[in-house]
Amino acid sequence: MGRWEPDARGRLERAAYELFEEHGYEQTTVAEIARRAGLTERTFYRHFADKREVLFSGQAQLNELFVDAVLATPADAAPLDAVAAALAPSAGFFAGRHGHARRRQAVIAATAELRERELIKMAALVAAVADALRRRGVPDPTASLAAEAGIAVFRVAFERWVTAPEDGDFGAILRESLDQLRALASS
Amino acid sequence: MGRWEPDARGRLERAAYELFEEHGYEQTTVAEIARRAGLTERTFYRHFADKREVLFSGQAQLNELFVDAVLATPADAAPLDAVAAALAPSAGFFAGRHGHARRRQAVIAATAELRERELIKMAALVAAVADALRRRGVPDPTASLAAEAGIAVFRVAFERWVTAPEDGDFGAILRESLDQLRALASS
Repeated sequence: MGRWEPDARGRLERAAYELFEEHGYEQTTVAEIARRAGLTERTFYRHFADKREVLFSGQAQLNELFVDAVLATPADAAPLDAVAAALAPSAGFFAGRHGHARRRQAVIAATAELRERELIKMAALVAAVADALRRRGVPDPTASLAAEAGIAVFRVAFERWVTAPEDGDFGAILRESLDQLRALASS
Repeated sequence: MGRWEPDARGRLERAAYELFEEHGYEQTTVAEIARRAGLTERTFYRHFADKREVLFSGQAQLNELFVDAVLATPADAAPLDAVAAALAPSAGFFAGRHGHARRRQAVIAATAELRERELIKMAALVAAVADALRRRGVPDPTASLAAEAGIAVFRVAFERWVTAPEDGDFGAILRESLDQLRALASS
């Protein structure tokens, strides 16, 4: 990112979303994205591995956020509390991004390949959280179950948040979903 | 399935598994499967849409089993009890199939495309169970959460059962995993 390309990443992202929405994801090429952003293809590839990456680069950050939070919980925390702690920082991650998240969701919903990619990324998130729990000393199968349950809570909460037309408090929705899981399991 | 092709489906399945194990899934063609089974390609396509279907045809049965069981639970059953009831018949489904399940798992684990397909089929299972719960009058997000949690229990139990070198009691492992989820959520 040289001085001659201010906010190249943001410009590429905005151009990609515009084109995905105008022509569809599959019909959009990297060359078109670069052109719309007023940048070169080479610059595009300096920021993203491919056009799909424009939609999924946030997932890696989310993954890191979850894993770091699990590892930071006290050693004597109950597994589900560790998972709850892991989910909490995602509220900050999504703050102010409701409009963006809704646009992203619409692009993904329209393309089978992207819906599948989203599932695969979610499975990777489960595996990463389970692994972090194991590193914190939680044995299996509890680590796997807690991770699966935790990401299930995240998915359900995210779905509620992103499908609502108005921006809601994602952290509050997350806590509510976690309470619902506890209520469900204790009934 | 005419009289001149006794157990065509079983012969095709056995031939496919042999070839997947000998040469790898990607390297195996439908023509080779048919030849090994002593049948024609046309007969193959009468039983399976493609070679991938040989590995995933059981999933449709499982899906039906789960949905029927949810719909058959009493209307006043707690959502997680309905899900527990949905999982129970899968113990019968897998009875006596441990060796087969292990072979299938090994083929799937070796190929990225198949691992992804397995994830997608699991997501479809979650959606089908959530839908059945909604039809039984369970409101969202409880229906989604219960389905996600239930399939998580199923996945963790299946993983334990299939990775064990000796055949175990899948029903017992399922019940144990469900108890672990309850313990997890109540801690």
